[in-house]
Amino acid sequence: MSAKKVGIVGGGQLGRMLALAGYPLGIACRLLDREPGCPGGQVAELVPGALDDPAALERLADGVDAVTIEIENVAVEGLEALARRVPVYPPPAAVAAAQDRLAEKELFAALGIPAAPFARIDTGADLAPAVREVGLPLVLKLRRMGYDGRGQRVVRDAADIGRAWAELGEGPAIAERWLPFEREVSSIAVRGAEGALAFYPLAENTHHGGILHTTLAPYEDATLQRQAERWLAAILERFDYRGVLTVEFFLTRDGLVANEIAPRVHNSGHWTIEGAETSQFENHLRAVVGWPLGDTRPRGHAAMLNLLGRVPPAEAVLAVPGAHLHDYGKPPRPERKVGHCTLVDPDRDRLLERLAALRAAAAST
Amino acid sequence: MSAKKVGIVGGGQLGRMLALAGYPLGIACRLLDREPGCPGGQVAELVPGALDDPAALERLADGVDAVTIEIENVAVEGLEALARRVPVYPPPAAVAAAQDRLAEKELFAALGIPAAPFARIDTGADLAPAVREVGLPLVLKLRRMGYDGRGQRVVRDAADIGRAWAELGEGPAIAERWLPFEREVSSIAVRGAEGALAFYPLAENTHHGGILHTTLAPYEDATLQRQAERWLAAILERFDYRGVLTVEFFLTRDGLVANEIAPRVHNSGHWTIEGAETSQFENHLRAVVGWPLGDTRPRGHAAMLNLLGRVPPAEAVLAVPGAHLHDYGKPPRPERKVGHCTLVDPDRDRLLERLAALRAAAAST
Repeated sequence: MSAKKVGIVGGGQLGRMLALAGYPLGIACRLLDREPGCPGGQVAELVPGALDDPAALERLADGVDAVTIEIENVAVEGLEALARRVPVYPPPAAVAAAQDRLAEKELFAALGIPAAPFARIDTGADLAPAVREVGLPLVLKLRRMGYDGRGQRVVRDAADIGRAWAELGEGPAIAERWLPFEREVSSIAVRGAEGALAFYPLAENTHHGGILHTTLAPYEDATLQRQAERWLAAILERFDYRGVLTVEFFLTRDGLVANEIAPRVHNSGHWTIEGAETSQFENHLRAVVGWPLGDTRPRGHAAMLNLLGRVPPAEAVLAVPGAHLHDYGKPPRPERKVGHCTLVDPDRDRLLERLAALRAAAAST
Repeated sequence: MSAKKVGIVGGGQLGRMLALAGYPLGIACRLLDREPGCPGGQVAELVPGALDDPAALERLADGVDAVTIEIENVAVEGLEALARRVPVYPPPAAVAAAQDRLAEKELFAALGIPAAPFARIDTGADLAPAVREVGLPLVLKLRRMGYDGRGQRVVRDAADIGRAWAELGEGPAIAERWLPFEREVSSIAVRGAEGALAFYPLAENTHHGGILHTTLAPYEDATLQRQAERWLAAILERFDYRGVLTVEFFLTRDGLVANEIAPRVHNSGHWTIEGAETSQFENHLRAVVGWPLGDTRPRGHAAMLNLLGRVPPAEAVLAVPGAHLHDYGKPPRPERKVGHCTLVDPDRDRLLERLAALRAAAAST
């Protein structure tokens, strides 16, 4: 009796939160994941299978109104094959660009979006010229499959670059100038049918060991907000995109510098469930099925705290006034994202006080 | 991998919204319903069976941390039997009182809660004395199984009471004085472990043909709010209650008059999903598993519009700025509650303007 059906490649926590956002709208989600007990499979129909298995993708797409993704590291060929018989959003070309740090850099350059200077590394012979070109310190990043700080090494001394590349498996990479930055912010936009656009306010992110730890939103700076919106609009339009798109930026002395694109809902947008009029998850689904986009306005100041390793006792977290808990249903494992908590308050100072209490509660066992 | 498991007797839209509120908290719900395609069964584990089938109730309760209800017309004996082996909230005695209009009236009287004068009707011989005792017009109400205006007749002329009772099947009933009222408001409270209490603000309800049509919240009147909170607290404490409790009131020239109790989450509390810090569904589950209660504060002025008969096109509803849609996944049927929409706005006048637009959109086909 659902009005629409959407297939989602991936059954992690993003798929879970998409599925939960879909039910009230009358959108039933079906997820594809190798793990039967995955977070998404606990709350929605699951097609068990590998994300690049053509037969499993066919089963995922059978009878759905559209297919989308909750993880960008999927085989683009599989998405392209599906796109010949069912709408696939975001467009596979956008997913391909976001999978490859070189393509991403070229996209930023083509659209005039500031990004760190970089050089391409295909063979060992490219290493020394790259050091000369981008300068030191630099960050050596594999072009593919990097996330949460994996697949990269900071190089401070030219003599170390060979070892760093060896540690990364000598795969195709880029060398990128390491930029001193003041903050990391992310911008989330959504594009719907007929080019409809909506933007969430910038959010400020704090990482620990490469993993997102805390998001505070909105990060209020009208000039930066306008810039980010213009750049995200350019990316969205280039691909005739539908759905949510996230860009992570460094805020340097010279302004915003684009770091990377996620062609999907994003951890730094989890605050929107309680903190914005319409969550990133609901807006992604609205966009994918072609419905009007929802209001992206914040409901106050919001803080999102990732829960890593294991979910603390709910009693402790929920005893913090106004705290909301999101448990992804995952078994504990060190550094794994197993849930998050959110706080919303009209007053930013009071929010920060409550966040301190929430951190203490989240550290309890 | 859920932290807690809760069994819910009933799989309608209230069970569906409870289950959806449970997932983020790490609470998995299992529902009991006769209909495999029921709204709740579309989003959570379903035990198929009648609500009074002891074997089905056993299957529902197997391995859960607590059992609760989403409909009050369940066999109290079944709940009492379950309560011997698993926590059942609200307590079966509270459910029993809410099932019987006579017990409800006696409860109001015992706790000093204003209610309309009434007389008990067991046989035809009670009809004429009841007219003399409560006066005309009166409302003849079956003691059991009445909801959404069913099981009752307004009697304006003493000569009509016999026919009215016959139309109701001559079952045990009460005759209640018909009170001229200005508004209908409802009060929703939640009681948790160790007597923790939280109250939502009063909401104003508009009914059409006995069925709730629109709720506006908060209905701001500090005196009435204090009175309602005192009375709900008295009911909750009398039963050592856990979970959400709703009382519907008439607002008459002489103040609040209690109409009826619902020992559960309530249609007039659906606005709390977007309109309050913590929804009635989340707070009910927190109470039932013994976790701290969530903040009941409103996020602004909220309007809830029931969708009756059939869900209008989502495109039309969602085109209203800020509109949220809740589709219960039910097949269309005249006058059936198939979904609801919500709006929240800091400004009440603007909310009412947007509500007019939402009504127009909801009437589209």
